[in-house]
Amino acid sequence: MDVFDTPTPELQTMPLGLYDLVTYSIVAAGFALFAYFLYSWTSRGEIGVRYRPAVLAGLCIAAVATLSYLVLFIRWDTGFTLTDGVFTPNAEAARATIYPRYVDWTVTVPLLTAELLAVCSLAGARARNLRFSTMAAAFLMILTGFLGSQVLAEGRDRTALVVWGLISTAFYAYLYVALIGAVRSSMSSMSVEAGRSLRNAAIVLLGTFGVYPLVYAVPVFVDVTPAWLTGMQVAYSAADVLAKVGFGVLVHKVAKMRTAEDVAAGIDTHPESVWVSNVHHSEGVLPAMAGGRTQFADNTVDDAPEFADHPRHPHEHHEVEHLREHGLGDGRVPAGGARHGATRTADDRH
Amino acid sequence: MDVFDTPTPELQTMPLGLYDLVTYSIVAAGFALFAYFLYSWTSRGEIGVRYRPAVLAGLCIAAVATLSYLVLFIRWDTGFTLTDGVFTPNAEAARATIYPRYVDWTVTVPLLTAELLAVCSLAGARARNLRFSTMAAAFLMILTGFLGSQVLAEGRDRTALVVWGLISTAFYAYLYVALIGAVRSSMSSMSVEAGRSLRNAAIVLLGTFGVYPLVYAVPVFVDVTPAWLTGMQVAYSAADVLAKVGFGVLVHKVAKMRTAEDVAAGIDTHPESVWVSNVHHSEGVLPAMAGGRTQFADNTVDDAPEFADHPRHPHEHHEVEHLREHGLGDGRVPAGGARHGATRTADDRH
Amino acid sequence: MDVFDTPTPELQTMPLGLYDLVTYSIVAAGFALFAYFLYSWTSRGEIGVRYRPAVLAGLCIAAVATLSYLVLFIRWDTGFTLTDGVFTPNAEAARATIYPRYVDWTVTVPLLTAELLAVCSLAGARARNLRFSTMAAAFLMILTGFLGSQVLAEGRDRTALVVWGLISTAFYAYLYVALIGAVRSSMSSMSVEAGRSLRNAAIVLLGTFGVYPLVYAVPVFVDVTPAWLTGMQVAYSAADVLAKVGFGVLVHKVAKMRTAEDVAAGIDTHPESVWVSNVHHSEGVLPAMAGGRTQFADNTVDDAPEFADHPRHPHEHHEVEHLREHGLGDGRVPAGGARHGATRTADDRH
Amino acid sequence: MDVFDTPTPELQTMPLGLYDLVTYSIVAAGFALFAYFLYSWTSRGEIGVRYRPAVLAGLCIAAVATLSYLVLFIRWDTGFTLTDGVFTPNAEAARATIYPRYVDWTVTVPLLTAELLAVCSLAGARARNLRFSTMAAAFLMILTGFLGSQVLAEGRDRTALVVWGLISTAFYAYLYVALIGAVRSSMSSMSVEAGRSLRNAAIVLLGTFGVYPLVYAVPVFVDVTPAWLTGMQVAYSAADVLAKVGFGVLVHKVAKMRTAEDVAAGIDTHPESVWVSNVHHSEGVLPAMAGGRTQFADNTVDDAPEFADHPRHPHEHHEVEHLREHGLGDGRVPAGGARHGATRTADDRH
Amino acid sequence: MDVFDTPTPELQTMPLGLYDLVTYSIVAAGFALFAYFLYSWTSRGEIGVRYRPAVLAGLCIAAVATLSYLVLFIRWDTGFTLTDGVFTPNAEAARATIYPRYVDWTVTVPLLTAELLAVCSLAGARARNLRFSTMAAAFLMILTGFLGSQVLAEGRDRTALVVWGLISTAFYAYLYVALIGAVRSSMSSMSVEAGRSLRNAAIVLLGTFGVYPLVYAVPVFVDVTPAWLTGMQVAYSAADVLAKVGFGVLVHKVAKMRTAEDVAAGIDTHPESVWVSNVHHSEGVLPAMAGGRTQFADNTVDDAPEFADHPRHPHEHHEVEHLREHGLGDGRVPAGGARHGATRTADDRH
Repeated sequence: MDVFDTPTPELQTMPLGLYDLVTYSIVAAGFALFAYFLYSWTSRGEIGVRYRPAVLAGLCIAAVATLSYLVLFIRWDTGFTLTDGVFTPNAEAARATIYPRYVDWTVTVPLLTAELLAVCSLAGARARNLRFSTMAAAFLMILTGFLGSQVLAEGRDRTALVVWGLISTAFYAYLYVALIGAVRSSMSSMSVEAGRSLRNAAIVLLGTFGVYPLVYAVPVFVDVTPAWLTGMQVAYSAADVLAKVGFGVLVHKVAKMRTAEDVAAGIDTHPESVWVSNVHHSEGVLPAMAGGRTQFADNTVDDAPEFADHPRHPHEHHEVEHLREHGLGDGRVPAGGARHGATRTADDRH
Repeated sequence: MDVFDTPTPELQTMPLGLYDLVTYSIVAAGFALFAYFLYSWTSRGEIGVRYRPAVLAGLCIAAVATLSYLVLFIRWDTGFTLTDGVFTPNAEAARATIYPRYVDWTVTVPLLTAELLAVCSLAGARARNLRFSTMAAAFLMILTGFLGSQVLAEGRDRTALVVWGLISTAFYAYLYVALIGAVRSSMSSMSVEAGRSLRNAAIVLLGTFGVYPLVYAVPVFVDVTPAWLTGMQVAYSAADVLAKVGFGVLVHKVAKMRTAEDVAAGIDTHPESVWVSNVHHSEGVLPAMAGGRTQFADNTVDDAPEFADHPRHPHEHHEVEHLREHGLGDGRVPAGGARHGATRTADDRH
Repeated sequence: MDVFDTPTPELQTMPLGLYDLVTYSIVAAGFALFAYFLYSWTSRGEIGVRYRPAVLAGLCIAAVATLSYLVLFIRWDTGFTLTDGVFTPNAEAARATIYPRYVDWTVTVPLLTAELLAVCSLAGARARNLRFSTMAAAFLMILTGFLGSQVLAEGRDRTALVVWGLISTAFYAYLYVALIGAVRSSMSSMSVEAGRSLRNAAIVLLGTFGVYPLVYAVPVFVDVTPAWLTGMQVAYSAADVLAKVGFGVLVHKVAKMRTAEDVAAGIDTHPESVWVSNVHHSEGVLPAMAGGRTQFADNTVDDAPEFADHPRHPHEHHEVEHLREHGLGDGRVPAGGARHGATRTADDRH
Repeated sequence: MDVFDTPTPELQTMPLGLYDLVTYSIVAAGFALFAYFLYSWTSRGEIGVRYRPAVLAGLCIAAVATLSYLVLFIRWDTGFTLTDGVFTPNAEAARATIYPRYVDWTVTVPLLTAELLAVCSLAGARARNLRFSTMAAAFLMILTGFLGSQVLAEGRDRTALVVWGLISTAFYAYLYVALIGAVRSSMSSMSVEAGRSLRNAAIVLLGTFGVYPLVYAVPVFVDVTPAWLTGMQVAYSAADVLAKVGFGVLVHKVAKMRTAEDVAAGIDTHPESVWVSNVHHSEGVLPAMAGGRTQFADNTVDDAPEFADHPRHPHEHHEVEHLREHGLGDGRVPAGGARHGATRTADDRH
Repeated sequence: MDVFDTPTPELQTMPLGLYDLVTYSIVAAGFALFAYFLYSWTSRGEIGVRYRPAVLAGLCIAAVATLSYLVLFIRWDTGFTLTDGVFTPNAEAARATIYPRYVDWTVTVPLLTAELLAVCSLAGARARNLRFSTMAAAFLMILTGFLGSQVLAEGRDRTALVVWGLISTAFYAYLYVALIGAVRSSMSSMSVEAGRSLRNAAIVLLGTFGVYPLVYAVPVFVDVTPAWLTGMQVAYSAADVLAKVGFGVLVHKVAKMRTAEDVAAGIDTHPESVWVSNVHHSEGVLPAMAGGRTQFADNTVDDAPEFADHPRHPHEHHEVEHLREHGLGDGRVPAGGARHGATRTADDRH
């Protein structure tokens, strides 16, 4: 079935109220993404290097999405002219008020899966493989959606919309299964509180992913009116804020808690203490100093080399080595009992 | 009652002097917000990680508000044309010289409540819940105000103005009560000087919040003239500077003093000394070094694990743990006697 | 007396040479301010936290002024059209080639007084009060100047120019007296070299402040010609560079030397050594480590609490406390003999 | 043979679908490069100073390429007008939608060779010479390609296209041989995993370099149609992302692993631990403290000078000195057994 | 002699090839300067604070020059219109395609002399005086050149060109002599390798300075044609890249080597090791800790004050003090034997 005889969804003559509401939702979403970008940038040092890729992914996502909303705003602002009390579209600019979103998603959705995986517990080759396959699936999910809804017949052919929508959905299904699996298998290696936040983050991400196909399907089922277009733009903007900022704040919390757990367990050092919602999770710990013992001890055997070559807790290190060399098991790194969080006693250690 | 028969408030023909005064107030407010953004950015390291969310919220607020003033300036600058010695409005651009403020507030007012709460003493679940409810109330306060004054009937319907204004005021009332409560219950856990600044910050914030409904109500009571429009723009600009920069500077001071109190009380470390108005509040203290004791002591029992897992002052840590696990009391973390500030003696410690 | 019958000073038909000279002076001043902004940003870590507010003020000043010159440049560039070998003004843009300067000054002149006071020795309440009153006076000095020369009768009424100019001058007089007093009383608490630079900084600042009223008075005494306008723009640009960059470089030097003096006197720590013009002023000193003594010493009395709560040199700390609590004397913090600079001997320490 | 009788390749009348696809590929590539720029910027501290030039080169490459894609996007966006359902080119802007790429490559391709060499093991004069000659060859490869395809006869003369294409290819051949040689001779001095990533990085770089001459040759063999132009733009965009982002991520990994190997081998210090894909590669190690031994040891001979003047492992230092002074061998610095990675035992050290 | 009867040099009708070549040279130079700016910014921490002013000067130079090239690009791009296969100039914009360079040079050339002097060995008053006089001479050299070639008679009067050219040359001659002298007298106080790079940097700087008067003189001797204008623009761009980026990279290397020499000689601390072209020059060294000895040593005499007030090597410090107080000799700070670089033995120290 063909929709060529109805106007392009983007080219609506907008009454003032709805036009302002779309402007509002685009600019507010852009501001929220920009604020989140600044927050990720300035707080990235609060996360240990082990989980920092999660924050850096969030930061890149926020920056790209902010730019994308800037482009959207300019298109929306210049795409309509106020005449006789309504905003009438200008074909060239106004038709480009939805598809810039696909360009944003092409880069940010793969990064969102990387952000989630960076606070899971998969390690080594298994982590690399899953990261690659989910990023590729996310990229293809967006690309096929873009081809179906925008490029082929300009999104006016219902058959193309449906066929490419289904292809896109197949990639979504893979993502769904793969990410849920990764999150499930990771929760046992962290504290209960961190695990709960990780689960919530996954729910927010995969849940909001469900909004996009719904909006995508709107032109399949209805003739787009100004109110529908307003709804589509507001829904996309809200979903973007939820899936990027809301999800990002939860991942940030997981990363911060896991940093504290690593420090408390002696697995890693971090120069700042960790506080979450005004609760103290770990002390700051400086790394050891080069050639430390030689300098300060007089009569001891110089065992500095052992110290420099190995982490402080050899058996944990061996686990890591073991995993790295044999890739056995499910690729998860046991977090050395860190699941007990900062409350574990000294007895847990050996 | 209907105001459709009077011109839109924003579409005034402005004489040169008033036009320049509005330009001046918009650009000066934008410059002040930008300077405050730079200050927050470059001085954020002076605040310990515990209170740093306050500064990061301030930084995001300043950045978003600066951008918003840039948009306002461009609208104002391009929205009027000098003809025959007066500035005549251009309908499309000039009508957008007030409502961009609502977009700014949608993001910044929730962050302002988060900024205030980040230097209060609530902790754990109670802090999270209050933060969520006040941020939601702040968001709804702005959104309903926006719908009433701008979207519905373009703010030209007095009934809508009043009804939505009252709904918005209800959220304001909740904010007022909740924030006052949080500040009151926090003041006892910090030094007198920090507490006084915290109280002042709350007064500035909630006080200037009162300016906005007054300006909002102007079109309800009077026919807007160029002088009224000038007054509205100048009042909004001054209130924004006061509520963001003035408030932010006070919160920054509270955060700095509480950082010093934590360091002096041994609750936290901070690599730089803290000075406020040229008065010394605390020394810089580095975190302990990984595996510290093992390295330097020859004959002592290796009790490093105990050290790594617990903060230096176990009884304080237990209080925190206690709160975290049972959530009892009012959720405030006792600051370990920090209310005495840097002048407390060693006897306070045990 | 009225000047309405002569053309507005800004609306001159400029010959090529003079037009290019004004462009040159605006852009060169903008570049110099931008370079100084980058320098302040990248070298702020060289200053200890005690004096860092001076550098941060300088940084904000430079950024705001750079933006202001960008606006000026755009106005100047678009405000004139090359026709028949001369640049003819376009009323709307060209009339806005001087008053943006007032917006800049509204924010930067109060910050300049804060910058100067931040390297003086006043402390506590006295510092806060003087900072507040001088910043307010500076703000009012600019605001009244702006009202008189630009807003009221568009600066074309000689009586208004004179009256408001005199009001503005009264604030300048207060600034002059208050800042000179603060600098005088501070010089004895720092080394001779730092004191000399502080005095020079005050001379540069208050001296260049004298240029502005002279330029402000030009339209009172002469009919502005293209050459006069060129002179006004070049003079304003040169004065801005001198009062912001020249002054800022001197304050930066004072702040750096005082940092070195504090480190050398043991009052503060600073992780980098301090060099001024290739001369070594102090070593880098790291802060002490948390729980230091407990960790390393076996048999000593644990006096760590005393150490953690007090600065290393109790008598100096007591002076500070004394000042803070009683606010007596003139509010200056004695710098613990730091006036001898790095050359003081161990005997000064007691 | 002359192609002047066919239209310029860039000046195609584009149907909507193909036009959107080119916009998509330009903007998506720009976003990916921008995200990679942010990632390089924020993660550069994870790489030790020894290999940091690689990350800094990657960062500069990403920034320049992002700007270049911004220019391309503006040209492409303004270069075509939607008329009668197709995008018709505007001669001045549309003709500049390919050659900005050459300006980008002029700066980025020499930096790409520097990026690769910075993680190889050549040192001293040999490294400097090879870096200089490969950067010069890369510069000339692009310059001659630009002259042939754009400047001379505007790329419409097939003979010029072929002759200059061959000259350009000669420089490519040199690059190919020189870089392959450097990578081959370096792989033995690092761990197997790092070496494999280095090899992959070289394959990605030199492989994608092969795409450019293919696209360059298109106008030699076919009359460019809208589909061909779309293909050229998409291919260039994809190749740029692969050669800059894909290559950069691999080099980043090599640099991170080699940093860990240096720390584990005691050759260098790094204040953060190193984790790659959630696997722990090295502990954080602080540098020694100035005058360390004098301060803490009571009865030992003060051999601090020896320590301060020499690296901890004199024989390794001597190798370096040796190389520096005599430039013998192949210029590679033996990495002190680092090829065994973090798993080497203390026995390797002496 | 008068050149008013020939067209202004900037207002040439450009054929496509030459126009593209100028665009290419302007944008490529801008990209190179921007990349160098990012490199200076991100690598400034590799240089010790003593020589850091050199890198900060380079960073400011790069930023200002990048902006200047952005202005040039916009002028060039908008200054010509493609009509009938050639680019015809638009008088207002096209005439401003050379003189923005003078604005850039007004700020950057004085900074270039400061950059060079910052890695020389002059110290104290002598350094300050020479820095001031060379920066002033550089400023006047550019200002007089600008007046002669652009302002007076718009550069169309050959007599003015020659007279002001000669005045400008006099300042150049002073710069030449003063800088050569400073470099010559400094080379003996650093390692041979650093000295050689310093000499090369001076040659590059003063050599490329010679290109500018040659281009300046072009309109004196020839009637400017499109090819001559292309040559002038390409030559200016190439000279700018050489004098700013090429020179800056050499100065960066000198600063890095001298940092390593200071650390190796115990004159300064630096938290990172120093590597140049993969060759190790010095270890990272942390500063001493506050109150170090008191804390860690039990039975020793507390000589901490001596330590805190003086650098570790009192005789070196006394030399510095001596110089600072008496200003005798030639103002050079003896670098404590650092001229032997990292290879000096412990015996050099006493």
